[in-house]
Amino acid sequence: MKKRSRFLQVPVEPFTIDPESKADELLEKLEHISFQGRSLGTAHRVWQKMLGDDVTIFMGMAGALSAGGLRMVVAYLIEHRFIDCLVSTGANLYHDLHETRGQHHYIGSARSNDAALADDRIDRVYDTFASEEEFCDNDVWIGDFAATLEQRSYTSREFLNLLGEHLWKETKGHGILTAAYRAGVPIFCPAIADSSIGMGLSQGRHKRKGSGYIDVIGDIIESANLVIRRPRTATIVLGGGTPKNFINQASVEAEFFCPAVGGHRYALQIVTDVPHFGGASGSTLEEAQSWGKLAADAAQVTVHADATIALPILATALARSSAALVAARKKIAMDPSKREMLVEGKPISSDAFEETQ
Amino acid sequence: MKKRSRFLQVPVEPFTIDPESKADELLEKLEHISFQGRSLGTAHRVWQKMLGDDVTIFMGMAGALSAGGLRMVVAYLIEHRFIDCLVSTGANLYHDLHETRGQHHYIGSARSNDAALADDRIDRVYDTFASEEEFCDNDVWIGDFAATLEQRSYTSREFLNLLGEHLWKETKGHGILTAAYRAGVPIFCPAIADSSIGMGLSQGRHKRKGSGYIDVIGDIIESANLVIRRPRTATIVLGGGTPKNFINQASVEAEFFCPAVGGHRYALQIVTDVPHFGGASGSTLEEAQSWGKLAADAAQVTVHADATIALPILATALARSSAALVAARKKIAMDPSKREMLVEGKPISSDAFEETQ
Amino acid sequence: MKKRSRFLQVPVEPFTIDPESKADELLEKLEHISFQGRSLGTAHRVWQKMLGDDVTIFMGMAGALSAGGLRMVVAYLIEHRFIDCLVSTGANLYHDLHETRGQHHYIGSARSNDAALADDRIDRVYDTFASEEEFCDNDVWIGDFAATLEQRSYTSREFLNLLGEHLWKETKGHGILTAAYRAGVPIFCPAIADSSIGMGLSQGRHKRKGSGYIDVIGDIIESANLVIRRPRTATIVLGGGTPKNFINQASVEAEFFCPAVGGHRYALQIVTDVPHFGGASGSTLEEAQSWGKLAADAAQVTVHADATIALPILATALARSSAALVAARKKIAMDPSKREMLVEGKPISSDAFEETQ
Amino acid sequence: MKKRSRFLQVPVEPFTIDPESKADELLEKLEHISFQGRSLGTAHRVWQKMLGDDVTIFMGMAGALSAGGLRMVVAYLIEHRFIDCLVSTGANLYHDLHETRGQHHYIGSARSNDAALADDRIDRVYDTFASEEEFCDNDVWIGDFAATLEQRSYTSREFLNLLGEHLWKETKGHGILTAAYRAGVPIFCPAIADSSIGMGLSQGRHKRKGSGYIDVIGDIIESANLVIRRPRTATIVLGGGTPKNFINQASVEAEFFCPAVGGHRYALQIVTDVPHFGGASGSTLEEAQSWGKLAADAAQVTVHADATIALPILATALARSSAALVAARKKIAMDPSKREMLVEGKPISSDAFEETQ
Repeated sequence: MKKRSRFLQVPVEPFTIDPESKADELLEKLEHISFQGRSLGTAHRVWQKMLGDDVTIFMGMAGALSAGGLRMVVAYLIEHRFIDCLVSTGANLYHDLHETRGQHHYIGSARSNDAALADDRIDRVYDTFASEEEFCDNDVWIGDFAATLEQRSYTSREFLNLLGEHLWKETKGHGILTAAYRAGVPIFCPAIADSSIGMGLSQGRHKRKGSGYIDVIGDIIESANLVIRRPRTATIVLGGGTPKNFINQASVEAEFFCPAVGGHRYALQIVTDVPHFGGASGSTLEEAQSWGKLAADAAQVTVHADATIALPILATALARSSAALVAARKKIAMDPSKREMLVEGKPISSDAFEETQ
Repeated sequence: MKKRSRFLQVPVEPFTIDPESKADELLEKLEHISFQGRSLGTAHRVWQKMLGDDVTIFMGMAGALSAGGLRMVVAYLIEHRFIDCLVSTGANLYHDLHETRGQHHYIGSARSNDAALADDRIDRVYDTFASEEEFCDNDVWIGDFAATLEQRSYTSREFLNLLGEHLWKETKGHGILTAAYRAGVPIFCPAIADSSIGMGLSQGRHKRKGSGYIDVIGDIIESANLVIRRPRTATIVLGGGTPKNFINQASVEAEFFCPAVGGHRYALQIVTDVPHFGGASGSTLEEAQSWGKLAADAAQVTVHADATIALPILATALARSSAALVAARKKIAMDPSKREMLVEGKPISSDAFEETQ
Repeated sequence: MKKRSRFLQVPVEPFTIDPESKADELLEKLEHISFQGRSLGTAHRVWQKMLGDDVTIFMGMAGALSAGGLRMVVAYLIEHRFIDCLVSTGANLYHDLHETRGQHHYIGSARSNDAALADDRIDRVYDTFASEEEFCDNDVWIGDFAATLEQRSYTSREFLNLLGEHLWKETKGHGILTAAYRAGVPIFCPAIADSSIGMGLSQGRHKRKGSGYIDVIGDIIESANLVIRRPRTATIVLGGGTPKNFINQASVEAEFFCPAVGGHRYALQIVTDVPHFGGASGSTLEEAQSWGKLAADAAQVTVHADATIALPILATALARSSAALVAARKKIAMDPSKREMLVEGKPISSDAFEETQ
Repeated sequence: MKKRSRFLQVPVEPFTIDPESKADELLEKLEHISFQGRSLGTAHRVWQKMLGDDVTIFMGMAGALSAGGLRMVVAYLIEHRFIDCLVSTGANLYHDLHETRGQHHYIGSARSNDAALADDRIDRVYDTFASEEEFCDNDVWIGDFAATLEQRSYTSREFLNLLGEHLWKETKGHGILTAAYRAGVPIFCPAIADSSIGMGLSQGRHKRKGSGYIDVIGDIIESANLVIRRPRTATIVLGGGTPKNFINQASVEAEFFCPAVGGHRYALQIVTDVPHFGGASGSTLEEAQSWGKLAADAAQVTVHADATIALPILATALARSSAALVAARKKIAMDPSKREMLVEGKPISSDAFEETQ
C-alpha cells in the first residue's frame, strides 16, 4: 500500500460564512479610519450599493484563492447572487474541482525544503501543499470528460458549465463550479490554456483527436453581448490578472456596438500589486476611467490587501448587512448550459456582437 | 474670524474595541486557510500564548497609525495590559497628543490637489488631512512644557511619562500617552529627534537655553536593563521602523550582560515591507534568529498586511477571546515617572547595565 | 481636419541596444554586492550560462513592456537568438504592432486628470498615453486580416506568425512580431482572449462568421512537444503572469510523456510581485522546484525589479559580453509558419503529445 | 586557534565608480521610455539640475546600503561633493566603520539555515553575512572612543565627525565616515539610539559614567539653521526612514524662522515602499508639497527601485555626465569638527534657531 507523504497532514479548511457574525459592524467602524482600513470599510459600502442598484455584477478572481481556502466564500457569493457572472483563472477552478472531488489542500510552510517536497511529489503554493498524484488524477478526469463531449468548439463558459454539471452529478459536492452550475451563473476563463484545466483538455485531445477545442474568442463576443443586453454593470476584482482586464474589455467592446454602455457603474478591487510598474493587475481605477472602462462618476474603491484577509471578512459582513438587499435583488435569469447562453430567455451569440441603435 | 478650510469636514473616528464582537471566531477560521489569512489567524493565537505565559510584552509602532485611527486601540492594549512596554515613533505619539488635545485628523483623499492643500495649510497623510495651524500650536504647547522642566537630560521614557501626565492633567483625555501614564506603562521613542515632538522640544530650547535634552543613549541602557530584570520577553511589531530594531537591540544588548536572556520567546510582526531589499522593516523573523534577537524555538508569525486592517480586528478578537487570560495575567509593576524607572519597586539604571552572573 | 490631442506630444522612444556600452562591467561589479544589485549581476551570469549550454531558451513577457519602451530590446533578443521561443501576453504583442504600424505611445504622467484624458479619448498606462482612435484602427486591421484567413482554427503560434508576416509585408517595420516572423522564432499567447488582439479577432468573426478561431489547447500540446523534442530548457520570465506558468506547464506536461525532461535547467525571473500572497507571478523558483518545473540543480536567480530598469541594462550588457557565445550558439531551426510547426525539419503535432520511451 | 566560520568565505566587494563607463548614455535613453526606467533616467537629469544650481544638497540614507556594498559609492559622492550633507541611519555608518576597520560583509544566501548561522554567531542581512564577534569588537571600539571624550553632550553631527577623525587616524581607510571627515561634510544621525553605534555609546557610558550623551535635539536646531543660512536646498532620499523625514523637518522648522525657505527646490527619492499604507518612507513627493516640505514648482522624481540597483548606476552615470558641473560647483565651506559647526566661517547654533526678518 502506498505510503502517505508526511507533508500532507492537516487539510486547509475552506472559510465558511457565518451570517450571524458582527463583521459588518467592524467594517462600518473601519470606514471612518484611514488608509487600507478605510478602503476595506468603503468596499463594504460600495458592494452594498451594487446590490441595491439594478446592475449586472461581474467578479474576477486571480491568485491561488481556491487553494487558499476561499472557494466556499465564492460559492456562497454565487449561490446567494451577490454576483452574477464569474471570470476566473483556470487554477482557481481547478483547485475548486480538486476539493469538490473530495481531495484537499494541506497546511504547509513557506520555508519548506522544496527538494524533499519534490521527492514526495508534493506541490507547494506558498504555505500550502497538495499531492501531485491527486492533481494528475484530476487531469485525467477532466481529459476523460472532455473526450466524451460532442466534437466541436465550446466557449469556456459552456465547457465550464458542463464540467460543473458533471462534477455535481458525480460528487454532489459544493464548490464554485457546482454552485455556478446550479445557480445558472456563467463562468468565463479566458486564460484556460494557462492552467491545469487546459492541461486536462490537452490530454483529452491526446486521447481522442478532435476534442478539447475551446473557443476563447467566442467568450469575448458573449461577454460583450451580456453587457450590451444589460448595459449597467459593476466589477469586483480579486487580485487582478486576466479576469480584471477581461471584465473591462467586455465593457469596452460592448460600447463599440452600444453607446449606452458607458463603463462600469461600480468598481471594487482587492489587489496587492501596485500601479507604478505599469502592469494591469496593479493599475488604478482612475486609469481605467481614461479608457472608458469605468464611468466617470462610478462609485469605486481599491483595497490594497491580500484577498485571503479581505474577502472572508467582507463576505461575512455582507451576509449580515445585505440580506434584505439580496432578497429584494432582481436576479438576472441566465441559462449558461447551452451553446448559446440564454439571458432572460433569449439566446446571446458568440458569433456576432448585438448591434443596437 | 478665521475661515475653516473646506478640506477639514469629517473627522477620522478612532477605532474602538467592542468586546462583544465575534471577531475571534473569524480569526479562528482564518487560521485554517492559507497565505496572509492564515498568518492573521495565527497572530491571534501567538498573542494569546504571550498572554498566557510569564513574559514581558514589548510592542513597537511605526507608520502613521495614530493619525490613521488606531490610537484608541493602542490605548486599550495599554490600559488592559495586553502589552507591557511601548516603543513608538515620535509621529504616532504626536498625532495621539493632537487628538487628546481635542483636535482631529480628517477624512481626505489620496488624489487631492496638494497645491490647494498647501494654500489652505492642510497637511496630508495619504488619505487623511490635518490642520498645520493646529500642528504648530501643538509644537508650541510641547515646547512650553519642556521649558518648564528642570534643566537636565531626560530619557525619552521619562520625558514621555511627564508629557503624558501633563496631558492628562490638562485634558483628562484618553489616548496612548495618557493611558500609558495612568497604567504605568513605559514608552520609549528612540528616534524622537525625527518627529514633531522633537521639533517641539527644539522650540522649547530656543525659548529657554538648557532645556530639551533627551538622553536617547540612556534609553538603550534602560530598555536592556528591563530585559535583564525579566529575561523572558515577547515582541509585537507594527510596521517595522526604529521600534522594531530597538526592541531587538534591547534583547541583544541585555544578553551581553545576562546569558539567561536568549532572545524573545514570542514574535509577531504586522508589516507591509518585504525582505528582499535588505532593510530592517521587512526583514524576516528567521533572519532575527541568526542574530539571536529571537529564541530558536520562539513561536512567531509575520502578517503581511496594513495594520489599519489587521490590528483593529486582532485587538477586537483578543478582547473577547483573551479576557480570562488578561485577568489572570501577572502585570509587572512599573513606575516610569521617576528619573530611574522602578520595576517591581526597584530602580533600574540608565547609566550602567545590570550585571548578573 | 481633426485636432490632435494636446496630451500626445512626445513619443516614447523604444530603448535600443548599444553593443559598445560597458554595461557588462557594471553588472559584473553588481554581482559582488548585495540584495537586488547582486541579483541583477547574477542574472547576467545565469543568462550567459544559458547561452553557453545547449538548451532551448523560453522567454515569458507580461506587464506593459512594449508600451513601456522595451519592444526593440525584445526584438533584438529574438533576432540575435538570445532566446528561442517567446510566450507573451496579448497586450505586449498588440502594443508592438501598434508601433510597427507607425503609431506611438507618448510620454505622459501618472498624475493626469483621467476625466480629461477620457474626453480626448486618450488611454493611459501609468505614465504613458496612447490614442484610442489609433487603437480602434488596429483592432479593425487585425480583424480584417483574420477574416481573410482560411476558416479553421489556428494555434496562437500559427496565427501570430501569419500576423507577423502580414505586418512585415505591409510595413517592413521592426518590432517583436516582425522579428519573430523573420527569425523563425515561435510566439505563444495563451491568454490571447484577454487582449486587444483577441478583440480584433472577435471583430473579424463579427464580420465573417467562422473566422477568429484560436486553438489555445493546441498551444499546450505544441509547446510541450517542443520540450519533448529537446528536453533541455531554460526559462526567462519578465513580470510573471500567464507566460510564466505557461512555460512551466510545457515542461510539466512534457515530463508526463518524456521522463528525460526533468524541469528547466536554468531559470531567471525579473518580477515585482512577492511570494507571500500566494499568486503565481510572485512565486519563488524554489517553489517551482517542488512541482518539478525546475530541475533540483538548476542555476537560478530572481531579480525583484521593474523590467523597464533591469532588462535594458541586462540586454545591453549581454550584447557586449556574450557576442562570442551567441555566435557559437547552435540555433534550433524552427519554422513556425505552418499549421504544424517544423523543428529541425520535422513537424510537431498540436493534436497529440509525442511519446518517447 | 579559532576556527573561521564556513559561512564567511567571499567578501562583498563595495561597488566603485568607473568615471569612464557609459552609464550616462544608458540613463539618457531610459529617460525616453516608461515606468521606472523613465523615473531612473529622470533622476539622472534632476540630480544634474541640482548640481548646476546653487543649492545645498542633503542626502538621506536608510536600509542596509553599506552592508549591501554601496559605501564607496556614498564616499565618492561625499568626496566629490555631489552632496553637501548626509543624514543616515546608525546602521549604515556602523557597517561602514566595520569595513573601514578592515573587516568584511560576506556573500551569503537569503535561504540560509538561520539556526546554523546562530550557532556560528553569523548575523544575516538578507543575502549577506557578518561575524557577530567582529561586530562586538566594533561596539567596544566605539565605546572606548566615546569614553575618552570630554564629558558633555554632543550633537550626532559633532560626535560622528570626531568618530570619523579617529577612524581615519587609526586606519587611513576609505569609507563614508572618513570621507565626510576629510571633506568637511556633516553627517546627522537622528536615530543613533536605534543602532549599534548607539549600543557602542551605551557601553562607553557603562564603562565611564557621564559619557555617551548625544544631543539629538541639538541636531534638529543645527540642521534647521543650516537651511536658514542657505535657504535653497535639495533632497536626495535613499530608502526613506528617519533620514527622509529629518531632511524635510529641517526645511519645515527653518521656515518658521525664515520665510525665505519655502521648501526644497529639488527632490529625488529612490524608494521601495509604497504610498497606500500611509507611512512616511513610501509617501509621495506630492504629499510633501501639501506640508510645504517641497516647493510647489520643485523638480522632483520618485524611482521605485532597490537602491543597490539604482544608485550604483546613477552615480556611475553622474561621474561622467556631471564632471564639469561638479568642478564648477560652489562647494559650501563647512567645518563640522567643532561644537558649533562653522558654515562659511560662521558658527551655527544648536541652542537657538537663527531668526531672520
